[in-house]
Amino acid sequence: MLDAPASVTQTATNDRRIEALLRHREIEEFNNAYAAALDEQRLADWAEMFTDDGFYIVISRENADRNMPVGLIYCENKGMILDRANAMKTEMFAPRYLRHIVGNVQVTGEEANGDIRARANYVVIQVLFDRPAATLHQVGVYYDKFRRVGGALKLAERRCVYDNLLVDNALCLPV
Amino acid sequence: MLDAPASVTQTATNDRRIEALLRHREIEEFNNAYAAALDEQRLADWAEMFTDDGFYIVISRENADRNMPVGLIYCENKGMILDRANAMKTEMFAPRYLRHIVGNVQVTGEEANGDIRARANYVVIQVLFDRPAATLHQVGVYYDKFRRVGGALKLAERRCVYDNLLVDNALCLPV
Amino acid sequence: MLDAPASVTQTATNDRRIEALLRHREIEEFNNAYAAALDEQRLADWAEMFTDDGFYIVISRENADRNMPVGLIYCENKGMILDRANAMKTEMFAPRYLRHIVGNVQVTGEEANGDIRARANYVVIQVLFDRPAATLHQVGVYYDKFRRVGGALKLAERRCVYDNLLVDNALCLPV
Repeated sequence: MLDAPASVTQTATNDRRIEALLRHREIEEFNNAYAAALDEQRLADWAEMFTDDGFYIVISRENADRNMPVGLIYCENKGMILDRANAMKTEMFAPRYLRHIVGNVQVTGEEANGDIRARANYVVIQVLFDRPAATLHQVGVYYDKFRRVGGALKLAERRCVYDNLLVDNALCLPV
Repeated sequence: MLDAPASVTQTATNDRRIEALLRHREIEEFNNAYAAALDEQRLADWAEMFTDDGFYIVISRENADRNMPVGLIYCENKGMILDRANAMKTEMFAPRYLRHIVGNVQVTGEEANGDIRARANYVVIQVLFDRPAATLHQVGVYYDKFRRVGGALKLAERRCVYDNLLVDNALCLPV
Repeated sequence: MLDAPASVTQTATNDRRIEALLRHREIEEFNNAYAAALDEQRLADWAEMFTDDGFYIVISRENADRNMPVGLIYCENKGMILDRANAMKTEMFAPRYLRHIVGNVQVTGEEANGDIRARANYVVIQVLFDRPAATLHQVGVYYDKFRRVGGALKLAERRCVYDNLLVDNALCLPV
């Protein structure tokens, strides 16, 4: 069989690149909606962004590098994630604003079952009501596994690996 | 009539997704040009990014949440925005650098007249010439209404809602 | 000859916009991979992101504005970049984490030889192991010239122009 003409090959290549673009954009949109849910303290919406078997951990870079699974927050299914969201209901009204900046989104692979591996850098900036200055509350990387459920992306896994954590009274807030 | 074949439906869906992608990208480009104009202290260029009836306000999250329209900066048309830009001409040479990081851009809707509703998170980092360290000058959200004028996007409205503000001598700079 | 029908013109316009979108995305991907290489202290990978005649400079905004080419780091070819990477081998294990946030990517032009001019804002956040808080280590702009080599983008030039620099013991790390 003859090779496809160059223009057809080019079109196919572009289609694949556009497909990758759309997938990347979809993950960015997810991350932006995720950030907005946390910034606006809509914790129930945050919990709904995980699959039923969703895994969520917030862990220091030091522990993650050593494969020590001890995290500040550890949820191994959506029940635990919902518990976390409910537990926050009182605390969320504490006098503090958080703002998530999520950037550097990279799609890093695809699992056999179709789950998408991705990562992103995040910065959480905090403003305490009784202090004038904003501070860098937490800086790190999201290591994610996304799954399509009923047409929408959900998190089957989000590992938040932080470089630092100001050990203040907001330890238990999700990021 | 028969349903369209799956491939045609798929193409139409992809076309819509690509259209959304292009619109999102256009807004990102606008925001990046906007940030560059402010970072490079080109205030006349900044003013030209608004429509003639452009509305521009910089307001605290606290006041915005309570629907109190008292802002640090309040401009209800381009004349007032131009006044602001002109007033800055001397002050802009004060010894200070600003750097805007704009992220988490979300298109949130479309008005009946075609205006596009969008939002984005922003961080303004400041360096004072007489201090070694950069500081978080302002952190917040842009709530925007974009309008296409002569082929290009302009801001019909930008509400800058900040979480914090270091109350220093740069209060009157636009963000 | 008759004008092309509106739909054909529209398709051609969209194709150009999609082409611009893909190019922009490719540069973002490059910048994210670049940031990850530095954050994970893979300096050999970092050096490979430059062309053989790659130019790399880290320079203050003050000096750059005055066309003074004195930089903190100055490499005028890949040999010098590799030297820099090798020299870091011991120092890179110093007790410190860095995290790059790259945003506001803008494609600004194309050279006669096909090189792509672009820029991006960057923030480097540092965590010293013996201090609880993250700090803004460096804030600035990448002014870039990208070249396609063997199908992949490489940096023919990256000028890192920083607004500030905390003058600490990490001066010689690339950004």
